[in-house]
Amino acid sequence: MTLTDHTHNPDARSWVLGSENHADFPIQNLPFAMFSSGGSKKRVGVAIGDMILDLAEAADFMADDARKLGELGSRADLNALFSCGAEAMRTLRHAIFDLLTDGGKQADIEPLLYRASECGLHMPFTVRDYTDFYTGINHATNVGKLFRPDNPLLPNYKFVPIGYHGRASSVRVSGSDVTRPKGQTKAPDADAPSVGPSKRLDYELEMAVWVGQGNELGAPIDIADAKKHIAGIGILNDWSARDLQAWEYQPLGPFLAKSFHSSVSPWVVTMDALAPFRVAQEARPEGDPAPLDYLFDEDDQATGALDVTMEVHLSTAKMRDAGQAPMCLSKGPMTAMYWTIAQLIAHHSSNGCDLNPGDLLGTGTLTGNMPDSVGSLLEITNGGKEPLALPNGETRTFLENGDEIIMTAYAEKAGAARIGFGECRGRIVEGPLG
Amino acid sequence: MTLTDHTHNPDARSWVLGSENHADFPIQNLPFAMFSSGGSKKRVGVAIGDMILDLAEAADFMADDARKLGELGSRADLNALFSCGAEAMRTLRHAIFDLLTDGGKQADIEPLLYRASECGLHMPFTVRDYTDFYTGINHATNVGKLFRPDNPLLPNYKFVPIGYHGRASSVRVSGSDVTRPKGQTKAPDADAPSVGPSKRLDYELEMAVWVGQGNELGAPIDIADAKKHIAGIGILNDWSARDLQAWEYQPLGPFLAKSFHSSVSPWVVTMDALAPFRVAQEARPEGDPAPLDYLFDEDDQATGALDVTMEVHLSTAKMRDAGQAPMCLSKGPMTAMYWTIAQLIAHHSSNGCDLNPGDLLGTGTLTGNMPDSVGSLLEITNGGKEPLALPNGETRTFLENGDEIIMTAYAEKAGAARIGFGECRGRIVEGPLG
Repeated sequence: MTLTDHTHNPDARSWVLGSENHADFPIQNLPFAMFSSGGSKKRVGVAIGDMILDLAEAADFMADDARKLGELGSRADLNALFSCGAEAMRTLRHAIFDLLTDGGKQADIEPLLYRASECGLHMPFTVRDYTDFYTGINHATNVGKLFRPDNPLLPNYKFVPIGYHGRASSVRVSGSDVTRPKGQTKAPDADAPSVGPSKRLDYELEMAVWVGQGNELGAPIDIADAKKHIAGIGILNDWSARDLQAWEYQPLGPFLAKSFHSSVSPWVVTMDALAPFRVAQEARPEGDPAPLDYLFDEDDQATGALDVTMEVHLSTAKMRDAGQAPMCLSKGPMTAMYWTIAQLIAHHSSNGCDLNPGDLLGTGTLTGNMPDSVGSLLEITNGGKEPLALPNGETRTFLENGDEIIMTAYAEKAGAARIGFGECRGRIVEGPLG
Repeated sequence: MTLTDHTHNPDARSWVLGSENHADFPIQNLPFAMFSSGGSKKRVGVAIGDMILDLAEAADFMADDARKLGELGSRADLNALFSCGAEAMRTLRHAIFDLLTDGGKQADIEPLLYRASECGLHMPFTVRDYTDFYTGINHATNVGKLFRPDNPLLPNYKFVPIGYHGRASSVRVSGSDVTRPKGQTKAPDADAPSVGPSKRLDYELEMAVWVGQGNELGAPIDIADAKKHIAGIGILNDWSARDLQAWEYQPLGPFLAKSFHSSVSPWVVTMDALAPFRVAQEARPEGDPAPLDYLFDEDDQATGALDVTMEVHLSTAKMRDAGQAPMCLSKGPMTAMYWTIAQLIAHHSSNGCDLNPGDLLGTGTLTGNMPDSVGSLLEITNGGKEPLALPNGETRTFLENGDEIIMTAYAEKAGAARIGFGECRGRIVEGPLG
């Protein structure tokens, strides 16, 4: 797809009322999600303005090649649909675009639109494997400083896209409550650990990369082909219990400190929708080592980063009781990624590991290089030492029960329609053991 | 189930020819696997001697309660069957035992037996999540010594059952070739890493614990209930690329060094079959801290370990060409686990994480406390510094292409029938990039 693809034309208009200049879902976006309406079964929907198009129903009005894909809209997750690969999904995108812009189709298609406010949204994919990377170099530096003030980044950081396997079973869609985990913690001066609810519960602002077409075990994906394997992206909140993590994580990495819950946004924004926002990979400063061959692709270096802005908002119980709007905690760029998405795909499969449709890759916490673009409370409060003052007089070092974190993301620039991601929301509730 | 359960009677006999005193699969074992015969679709089988019973076909001859369970034998994995829980599986075990011991049923059941040597065996479960623990305290000590000679075990080891998330997608059944991974490695004196096939490819001798019934997110499993959530156990080879691991693993743990392939044995040996081999948990020496409350259960301490012996055998291409039998590299006890299986289940879910049917838990490499009971080449060769001499004049520090590792396991003692696990086998083949 070139940048002159007609689906990116900012002047394109859908006949769907209210979709024009919609903050998140104009005709140029067309993200996918799993939705249900009125107790019906889950099926694939496409967002257009404040409405959701039932993909499988709309398939009847598409030409042959797109119709077969659209029929996969009746499945219980997006896995089968996106396993068809990026090129097939582009054909489908064009078919949906045509139905929603061609006034002659309005009478047929309008009955297949559902009011989003009356629908439920569900996990977009069945996640088999979840891998969390660590591409946020500012975050890695900030966290490293807490442990190693003089030497925050380890020697492998600029060569290896560092990542680890996360827990797939506990990934939940936006809106699901987050039960405060309990676990072992040990104070530095204590002889032994004690067990109780986490006292240092945090969020982590990440983007979610969804794998579309997979690869066979033993057959790495070349970086030049990586694009074809990306279904799209969303927002990820990698909730973290810092006190559990500090005690458990050596020598094999984070485990229970993360596996209690991870939240993803329901809408999958395709790489096609984001094409106008591809930018050069600039997180790697002059003087850093060049990517090793298997991680280097000229086109990827020139256009492999995404000019997407991410925001974190906090709503406390007191704020809600007083009718106050959530407070913005940070606003930062996705270009804080030290590695491109294509580099993550190429690295992950470079040892022969097989990726599969619906695999979730987290970017790692993305902290910008400004004081107001910091992706976790751990960093904002300097490890809990400098409480954050909220406008209503409350303070926070870490999250309290009743706190709700709302993450949003969007891409915007002159000469292009704004592409939004919807939101990723979660509220902390008391755990079963207090 | 008490130890006087009639299915444990060592004098019990099946009418199936050759099953009497079978080394692995006497009537007292009755493990489950996924099998296929003559190009048929995969279905659930039960081992008896050298034969496999088709469970779904046999269900027709069972009483109501067992029949419903047996009908799940037509599914494509063991997940649905074992999600019914340990008690239901005990009912089914008794029903199968009765069919195979009652001579009056022989005419009906004999046609439902398939010669194992003519069948294919497949992945027993669809693995959603794979968690690898680190319970082998001798292994943890040996590996720790390579990095920290004076302080091999980290302070958390005796409090926290250390574990990390593994890669689920690349778990394969015994018999699948293992493609040598490539990846980044860095020599201590090199300025930068280079990329190539791993030169320090190793096996790790582990046992596989399969989760049966799961739990809801946010609802930890009490250690006293943990047993009900265990489907059974098998053998696990956690193939490891030591050179990739040394360079990539900080700060988030092993990733590509392990995710290229893990091998499991096809047969799931139930905890019921192993009941006569439950022993006290003795890996925790006097003077070590007591398990924290959520990890302590009196019955589990008294009977939560398993008296199972594990063996590793090596067959090189040269040995096979010369018609030589595989060489035994080690033979050690499963009681080298510092934590019981119940403790692993309780810990894993203690933060609210949900376990699901088919989840795979690795015990971690189990090295005994004898020179001939060492579970990896890394330990046998002291980090590659002391090559192992093979009887045919070859030497090994790490695995060569063509090397095959065969792991076996069994439980035996006077007054009980021997319970075998079959084997977990894998051969190293050259990777796609040499």
